[in-house]
Amino acid sequence: MSEIRRHYFLNEYCIVASGRKRRPHDFVKKDKGIRTSAKDCPFCPGNESMTPPENAVYRLGSGRPWDVRCFDNLYPALNKPHGYHEVIVDTPVHDGSPAGFSDEEMNLMVEAYRDRFDFYARKEGISYVSIFKNHGREAGASIYHSHTQLIALPLMPPEIERERSIIKRLDRCPYCSIVDQESGSDRVILENREWIAFSPFYSQVPFEVWILPRRHINNITYMDQAQTSSFIRIFRDILSRLRDALEDPAYNYHFMQTIGEDYHLNIRILPRTSIRAGFELNTGVYIITVPPEDAASFLREVRGIR
Amino acid sequence: MSEIRRHYFLNEYCIVASGRKRRPHDFVKKDKGIRTSAKDCPFCPGNESMTPPENAVYRLGSGRPWDVRCFDNLYPALNKPHGYHEVIVDTPVHDGSPAGFSDEEMNLMVEAYRDRFDFYARKEGISYVSIFKNHGREAGASIYHSHTQLIALPLMPPEIERERSIIKRLDRCPYCSIVDQESGSDRVILENREWIAFSPFYSQVPFEVWILPRRHINNITYMDQAQTSSFIRIFRDILSRLRDALEDPAYNYHFMQTIGEDYHLNIRILPRTSIRAGFELNTGVYIITVPPEDAASFLREVRGIR
Repeated sequence: MSEIRRHYFLNEYCIVASGRKRRPHDFVKKDKGIRTSAKDCPFCPGNESMTPPENAVYRLGSGRPWDVRCFDNLYPALNKPHGYHEVIVDTPVHDGSPAGFSDEEMNLMVEAYRDRFDFYARKEGISYVSIFKNHGREAGASIYHSHTQLIALPLMPPEIERERSIIKRLDRCPYCSIVDQESGSDRVILENREWIAFSPFYSQVPFEVWILPRRHINNITYMDQAQTSSFIRIFRDILSRLRDALEDPAYNYHFMQTIGEDYHLNIRILPRTSIRAGFELNTGVYIITVPPEDAASFLREVRGIR
Repeated sequence: MSEIRRHYFLNEYCIVASGRKRRPHDFVKKDKGIRTSAKDCPFCPGNESMTPPENAVYRLGSGRPWDVRCFDNLYPALNKPHGYHEVIVDTPVHDGSPAGFSDEEMNLMVEAYRDRFDFYARKEGISYVSIFKNHGREAGASIYHSHTQLIALPLMPPEIERERSIIKRLDRCPYCSIVDQESGSDRVILENREWIAFSPFYSQVPFEVWILPRRHINNITYMDQAQTSSFIRIFRDILSRLRDALEDPAYNYHFMQTIGEDYHLNIRILPRTSIRAGFELNTGVYIITVPPEDAASFLREVRGIR
């Protein structure tokens, strides 16, 4: 049987078509994309001349020239000063990936996200700063070496504006309600004092995960020490569970947040195991073949570690 | 230089990043998916027992058992009577494709679209009938043999609702304005007395094409004889130009239309040469690397025939 589900607070819908129900293994892709060698990699240490000069570097203090390195995208989507497009190389290790980072590496990457968000958010004329990762060729990555991108925009993007226009009219933050609603639900994958990670009731893709802070904050710069140290663990844990459950799938993650306007920060991870095809393009309704409750159950069971 | 463009009448945006400008050949995909054999194909004549029984068949009168065959999707997204999910096999020819159909074949396929739309639109509780094609594996097709899908929904989908909510407040149909605005523009690929086919000013993907009737009609059932015979030619011509320009790309096409509410039918074709990655997911803003004016120019030049 199939079921139509409405988004928590938007007029958006997904169809859970569980007649097509499948196990995580059915989503494993055989084509893993092109693993390149470190020698020719523009993001590896020693090859810095292959990219524009750095805008910022972050170091763990281990004597490496850098541990996170930020520079202008060589093919920017937007031109300065109307917009900015930066690459954040998350690690000097060619085969590194956040799913396998140490606490210190994870912390440094999040520190870079926060700093670079803040840096661009303060620029005149910037209304939104998009932080996102494309992992794997099917998720849009053209370079193998782990990296994140930041695009600073002179406009409020429709995805955020759509939510904001509803949120403005509500008495209570709908994300605060979602935290209450999902805490302890059968869609929870992990939760702790500061964060909750779950398969959303309304999902656009199988194995989609949302990570929400319990405390209402607009954006990543408001994360305090307790939130940060607990975020890096829950974020890495989710990424490693997805890696193990779906055998290193391509995925995108992105940060939903605002600069000045009231909002509730949330991080969304979308594995690329399905294709947004003609029906989704035509209607905006997503068909998912794994009920979020089952996805959460799979991801809870994958690994016991925290 | 890059340019931010607003949708004709929605609060949607795309970024034309022409610093990344490329020629059509750069979009050609090497992996063409799996070409299956007719012997095992569930959509080939002789294998009808591999699918549910037919709901309707259409014949050209050439003595074949069928030329277009419609049946329930074996794995429906929605269950009757809350929704319907039908497969329309466009041709009995395993390697057939609308880009290469004769006038008669094209006409029969459009007749089937019209009939099946009408059939489901009349069902109680149905608010929208989605007709779409996924061509090629990267566009979501799981079966090689050319087919179209129809999903009848018990709700008005967000993509249409978003447009409707704006259109209701306007004095004039925005699509009628688009017809005026694009007629003779440098984004036109083909136009005739009844139809205009163009690369939209706001595009979500490179080489996107919209086909609009000049005469305002809500849906495909209102197409008169002149519109129909001219549509089948312009539609096939566009599909064949895309095939030739991009070497048989994966693509989706879908019909934007309403059952009872005022709307302006339009058909959208989206080649799958790019990936909707983290930035698009985060913002709803699309980055396109070919200006629509250049895409139109390429597609005008591909073939001279009508």
